[in-house]
Amino acid sequence: MTVSRTVELEGHIIDSGTMGMCFGVVMDMGGEFEVEEFEVGRHKHAETYCRMRVLADSQENLRAILHELNQQGATVADPRDATLEAAPEDGVVPVDFYSTTNHPTFVRVDGEWVKVEDIEMDCALIVERSTPADPRTADDTDGDRDSDSPRVYTKVLNAVDEGDLVVTGETGIRVEPPERPRNGGGSFGFMQGGVSSERPSASLIEDIANEIHEVNANGGNVLVVCGPAIVHSGGRDALADLVRAGHIDGLSAGNGFAVHDLERDLYGTSLGVDTESLEHPRKGHKHHIYTISEIARLGGIEAAVDEGIVDEGVMYECIENDVPYVLAGSIRDDGPLPDTITDSIEAQNAIREQAQRADLVLMLSTLLHSVAVGNCLPSTTKTVCVDINPATVTQLLDRGSAQAIGMVTDIGTFIPMLRDELLE
Amino acid sequence: MTVSRTVELEGHIIDSGTMGMCFGVVMDMGGEFEVEEFEVGRHKHAETYCRMRVLADSQENLRAILHELNQQGATVADPRDATLEAAPEDGVVPVDFYSTTNHPTFVRVDGEWVKVEDIEMDCALIVERSTPADPRTADDTDGDRDSDSPRVYTKVLNAVDEGDLVVTGETGIRVEPPERPRNGGGSFGFMQGGVSSERPSASLIEDIANEIHEVNANGGNVLVVCGPAIVHSGGRDALADLVRAGHIDGLSAGNGFAVHDLERDLYGTSLGVDTESLEHPRKGHKHHIYTISEIARLGGIEAAVDEGIVDEGVMYECIENDVPYVLAGSIRDDGPLPDTITDSIEAQNAIREQAQRADLVLMLSTLLHSVAVGNCLPSTTKTVCVDINPATVTQLLDRGSAQAIGMVTDIGTFIPMLRDELLE
Amino acid sequence: MTVSRTVELEGHIIDSGTMGMCFGVVMDMGGEFEVEEFEVGRHKHAETYCRMRVLADSQENLRAILHELNQQGATVADPRDATLEAAPEDGVVPVDFYSTTNHPTFVRVDGEWVKVEDIEMDCALIVERSTPADPRTADDTDGDRDSDSPRVYTKVLNAVDEGDLVVTGETGIRVEPPERPRNGGGSFGFMQGGVSSERPSASLIEDIANEIHEVNANGGNVLVVCGPAIVHSGGRDALADLVRAGHIDGLSAGNGFAVHDLERDLYGTSLGVDTESLEHPRKGHKHHIYTISEIARLGGIEAAVDEGIVDEGVMYECIENDVPYVLAGSIRDDGPLPDTITDSIEAQNAIREQAQRADLVLMLSTLLHSVAVGNCLPSTTKTVCVDINPATVTQLLDRGSAQAIGMVTDIGTFIPMLRDELLE
Amino acid sequence: MTVSRTVELEGHIIDSGTMGMCFGVVMDMGGEFEVEEFEVGRHKHAETYCRMRVLADSQENLRAILHELNQQGATVADPRDATLEAAPEDGVVPVDFYSTTNHPTFVRVDGEWVKVEDIEMDCALIVERSTPADPRTADDTDGDRDSDSPRVYTKVLNAVDEGDLVVTGETGIRVEPPERPRNGGGSFGFMQGGVSSERPSASLIEDIANEIHEVNANGGNVLVVCGPAIVHSGGRDALADLVRAGHIDGLSAGNGFAVHDLERDLYGTSLGVDTESLEHPRKGHKHHIYTISEIARLGGIEAAVDEGIVDEGVMYECIENDVPYVLAGSIRDDGPLPDTITDSIEAQNAIREQAQRADLVLMLSTLLHSVAVGNCLPSTTKTVCVDINPATVTQLLDRGSAQAIGMVTDIGTFIPMLRDELLE
Repeated sequence: MTVSRTVELEGHIIDSGTMGMCFGVVMDMGGEFEVEEFEVGRHKHAETYCRMRVLADSQENLRAILHELNQQGATVADPRDATLEAAPEDGVVPVDFYSTTNHPTFVRVDGEWVKVEDIEMDCALIVERSTPADPRTADDTDGDRDSDSPRVYTKVLNAVDEGDLVVTGETGIRVEPPERPRNGGGSFGFMQGGVSSERPSASLIEDIANEIHEVNANGGNVLVVCGPAIVHSGGRDALADLVRAGHIDGLSAGNGFAVHDLERDLYGTSLGVDTESLEHPRKGHKHHIYTISEIARLGGIEAAVDEGIVDEGVMYECIENDVPYVLAGSIRDDGPLPDTITDSIEAQNAIREQAQRADLVLMLSTLLHSVAVGNCLPSTTKTVCVDINPATVTQLLDRGSAQAIGMVTDIGTFIPMLRDELLE
Repeated sequence: MTVSRTVELEGHIIDSGTMGMCFGVVMDMGGEFEVEEFEVGRHKHAETYCRMRVLADSQENLRAILHELNQQGATVADPRDATLEAAPEDGVVPVDFYSTTNHPTFVRVDGEWVKVEDIEMDCALIVERSTPADPRTADDTDGDRDSDSPRVYTKVLNAVDEGDLVVTGETGIRVEPPERPRNGGGSFGFMQGGVSSERPSASLIEDIANEIHEVNANGGNVLVVCGPAIVHSGGRDALADLVRAGHIDGLSAGNGFAVHDLERDLYGTSLGVDTESLEHPRKGHKHHIYTISEIARLGGIEAAVDEGIVDEGVMYECIENDVPYVLAGSIRDDGPLPDTITDSIEAQNAIREQAQRADLVLMLSTLLHSVAVGNCLPSTTKTVCVDINPATVTQLLDRGSAQAIGMVTDIGTFIPMLRDELLE
Repeated sequence: MTVSRTVELEGHIIDSGTMGMCFGVVMDMGGEFEVEEFEVGRHKHAETYCRMRVLADSQENLRAILHELNQQGATVADPRDATLEAAPEDGVVPVDFYSTTNHPTFVRVDGEWVKVEDIEMDCALIVERSTPADPRTADDTDGDRDSDSPRVYTKVLNAVDEGDLVVTGETGIRVEPPERPRNGGGSFGFMQGGVSSERPSASLIEDIANEIHEVNANGGNVLVVCGPAIVHSGGRDALADLVRAGHIDGLSAGNGFAVHDLERDLYGTSLGVDTESLEHPRKGHKHHIYTISEIARLGGIEAAVDEGIVDEGVMYECIENDVPYVLAGSIRDDGPLPDTITDSIEAQNAIREQAQRADLVLMLSTLLHSVAVGNCLPSTTKTVCVDINPATVTQLLDRGSAQAIGMVTDIGTFIPMLRDELLE
Repeated sequence: MTVSRTVELEGHIIDSGTMGMCFGVVMDMGGEFEVEEFEVGRHKHAETYCRMRVLADSQENLRAILHELNQQGATVADPRDATLEAAPEDGVVPVDFYSTTNHPTFVRVDGEWVKVEDIEMDCALIVERSTPADPRTADDTDGDRDSDSPRVYTKVLNAVDEGDLVVTGETGIRVEPPERPRNGGGSFGFMQGGVSSERPSASLIEDIANEIHEVNANGGNVLVVCGPAIVHSGGRDALADLVRAGHIDGLSAGNGFAVHDLERDLYGTSLGVDTESLEHPRKGHKHHIYTISEIARLGGIEAAVDEGIVDEGVMYECIENDVPYVLAGSIRDDGPLPDTITDSIEAQNAIREQAQRADLVLMLSTLLHSVAVGNCLPSTTKTVCVDINPATVTQLLDRGSAQAIGMVTDIGTFIPMLRDELLE
């Protein structure tokens, strides 16, 4: 039995590699293709159009192939509405539910292509058809969207409620992967396609500073994701300077980062130890745990700032400058601090909110928190991953953002040089 | 002002380096020492005794020095009882509380040295004096301990209750760091002092197999800590064999490991993909999230085994062979599975129980979970850390267990070779 | 001023990505393109043909673009003969000489496309027109080549002689990069496009064993490139077994590998040290240098074998089984052994001969020697790079062989498992 | 049979760990010890004295133990002259020759302790007794040494001449390993005992700058060992600045570093490519090999500078400022440049001369050349190893210099920050 379906591709599909990948997908998955129409973009500003029939030996295989083509940006010609099915109970989705990518996605509902809100990878798609009586949409004055239109948005699995209309199958879904920027893509163009420690570091830092300036100037949101190595390696003061100067709009970190930052403040000099020269006074375990105890006694970081106990550092500047932060807990935490969100689902929700709001994300020397933030990012959000370990950077970039820069460098020299670029 | 205190050291303190480290501690921290008595062990079976007076220029500095000496195994001569102070409120400890190491520790209460139960690093020490009416101790038939004796045990900070008697200061505390094994220390002797990928791998695996055999034979408890790379790299079937054959007594992992293991079972062959040759069918994101959804629908892993949906793999063998497991959640989890403990404090408590029960811990390709388990281990528990990344192994060994072996190798060849050693 | 030239592309140029890369090259380098003819392969067995005009604003830029297109496999339509220029003196090439890739290359001489002999990257191309009186070609009985035809072959720069006819410019040169294997490419197909430590190791080793078997069966040549870690990690005996069993046809290594191998034989047990358990008896520096001194005294490895001083190990098996080896010197060598070639140009020439003869190359835990061998390999030679450090594997694969497999694993478990696959 | 010998230890042998290591050596190697006298240093400025009898069950074992004790700084009580034996032929040493460490070493000749000249590890010791008629010593006006005294110096094995008097056995040799600096050791004190990427980078760079300043001020010699990553990562201009400002007294590198440096100069802008933003114009292979060809045509780097073809960069500044350089060849070189020493023994000799002259060595992002230089360094020469790969730094520090600092950082940010510290 041979079954088939016609799909269309449009755009800079040759030089972006999309077309080659689509042909590859079909062949790799055991299908065949017949190109029905092919109109090549004859020069660099012209787009290319391709319509092809995809053949497979079973409906199941055809569906699998169409799913992959869909994720490359191909759309089924002669589209039908997406299939919807109600969730059978809380936290449980229908068997064949569509699992999202992080690319801009559209779902066809009642003959209309609806853009998915807050796109994020590995979620279910929920369709909400408005009714005149729906109190939630009655007040909706969002000019972008007709209040009578259906809405489509993402939900993580554990947030699905019984009865939610969940998109299933592959029909009626259109994905738009970002196109590779042409020449002139700026700093976010030339560095794609790999990570390397063999790059001119100073000029890369300059590019990143310019990007931050631009986002700042446009009223955008800069989110930093911070690991404890920032404190060990001596980048803490420079980061505090950036927060104080208003370059940072949100901070995402773990219990460890905050404790290290506060410990520098509380014990950095009180025992006569010169923090500049000796960061591990006998491993510092005592100071670490004492810091947690001290902050717990006071009732949290903000209270410690209010009482004047904490009077410098990154967390201090966040509180003084109203920069919101999320401290997400993990099983390796000591303490934790009262500010740390210990439940991972609750912490993910807080991170999700940060991520969706961000226009530029700086991931600084933390794998766990960077992956957690990255999981919630649309692929259109500009992202910079900085770590001295190339494996960390590769792992982050591999997760699929087409707008990510990786930089393998020493965070202890990176942040001071970035500060100098931005504050001079 | 000069203040002083006399301390004693006893044992193989020269060749173990203890004495040198103690002298170094005093000098590095600005103190002076006068050796009052020194009786050297004149041959290799004789122990050495040293009594020295430690001088410092302030009580505060003296206390800091004594704290460090204490952690090296020195005890204050002419000991006094430990100082106790009641916790002012839940989760808050007295300012000068004693923060534990992971070495066997004794606390002097009412003139008697009491061994700390369930020693673990970075905890507070709680003293509980029994009273005749105490219903908890009345039934106590534990032969090792006089039911009228005081008890001393560890509590993590967040578990401290208001009124708990917490040990403060350095007085009346004795720490016994493990001595470096002499020649003939066996496999856990010769490999100390560093990690290397330049070791004869096959013979190291043989040593580890022998160690497992010995623990098994003595009715001991073998705990495996598992990362997802076990599944990617092809070590899963061999690990399942080890569980089935009864070599493993507990499993500690994250949501990701369990999902990868179950995904292999559910989707490994159902879509015609040969799992042996191709483990990343287009990144497998779809299968990953579908697996979570499927298990959630069924109500958990055990339910999925009961219904026959899951019928092979590591999790399957755990359930079939009554091997208890802990799945600890993290902020990078998809899902998670219903079995995953999402609150990090709750997860730590479950891990703590596993860790305290274990006689041998195999940490297999996971940094996060290995650190979490390692945090709860006494330094006397034998530990094997296996990872292809030397940085991971170093980081784990650095956390202080004197009984740890590190091995930098490929988990995908390690587990099959270990299985062959154990099951042949 | 706008200048232009027409180029042609043919083959599976869409799904291999070639066409996209060519379009990208033109745009990235500031040129324009106009597609004049485009005949798409309509199904997976059909080839695609594209003819396009490339425009640039100067002859210099056009030449640079054509050079890059050429390296992607595009050929200039309406070809002309290659430009030839005599080398002005020994070791000096004409200014605009053509520097080779490692892909199969053809040069147009006297209207005829001549295949380049012994293609290798970063060389000059020398054209030799035969004359009846040329004594070198008079005896030529090579059936593949008409003795009156011109020859084109590679020379490294330092080997160029005054008067050699060197190919310059881009005209008359055709490069054929290997096509990405279609589905069914076998073990050398599915693993392309990246290195990972997340692969099922055992099945990968099986694939490599099969590949060796096949090359052995076809009378092909298997070359191993060996680093000292083979000896440290316990893989030496298994490698010696493979040599003895006839699976290896050549060995390329450095002074260090040979010394470590011989040291195991000479001192492994003579001082009562069990080599299985303790490979660094006090760093072994003494044994290392004593081994060199002993072999030097005897006059070399072969003499040491003849006198019965060396009677096991990899070098021993090479000599006993007439497996030729090259030991290339480096500035970090101790000694070196009399067998080590200390001049790097002379050593490169010896390596070049090995590389050109090989049908399958196993690069085992050595960056320096693997790069040196890799530099001399045609891109059509199958290559397996094994190292525990992912950076080493990536660096080797990046050097451009389209037929390379990378495997991040422990050489101390890899070689024994490979031996078991091959010898069982 | 039990044999014995008495040895003495003196100095800060407890807190430096020496005494513990000596006891360990005896036990690990199967011997026994009896402490005959032990006078402990009772406070931190007092030295400790220990005399012990070492027992073993054979002369051979006793000798092996004494050899190890000797390398830890123990000396045989009641010393005898060193044993000397003539080398039987060129490049061949007597069977039992003494192989050097890199610590200051003294040899007892004719009842007199003679300091070894140019100490270096893994060499033979040659004794030269002066005779009145010896023309070499007749002119000797070196005030430090009586011209009638014997000389002892090192020779690498391949440089030994027939008839050279070579030291054999362990008798009459005294080694002085450097003592661990006490508190106040300055920057070269506090960082010993490990490598970490978790250090405050900026303050470490400041320490290194101060060290360079001090060596410069005292007329000392600063040697830089350079890898190609300096150029890729953008550190080249800053390094050229340091050479021009007179902070560098010698440069040691390979062919690759020089070619990359020159390529930047020759092709950096000539093709309109902005070297600041794009360092890999299509991998740059063409420029690389063209650079070699161009320099070869001109006859070498100095000629290229003289003709004005090369007018900036590190090699240019070396020539303009008379900073001597050694370019050592390797088997992975392209070309090589005419300046590159292709024979590894000849190159080692050139490196040896640089190393012996140096007072401070900066090893910058090269494993091969750093190991080669390190092999020739006395353990008293201050050394800084900088690399982004922790494994490289560890490997270099492990080779035994007690005066080495390791820093895991990005060379592309390190050199500019070092330049700013030194030149501001």
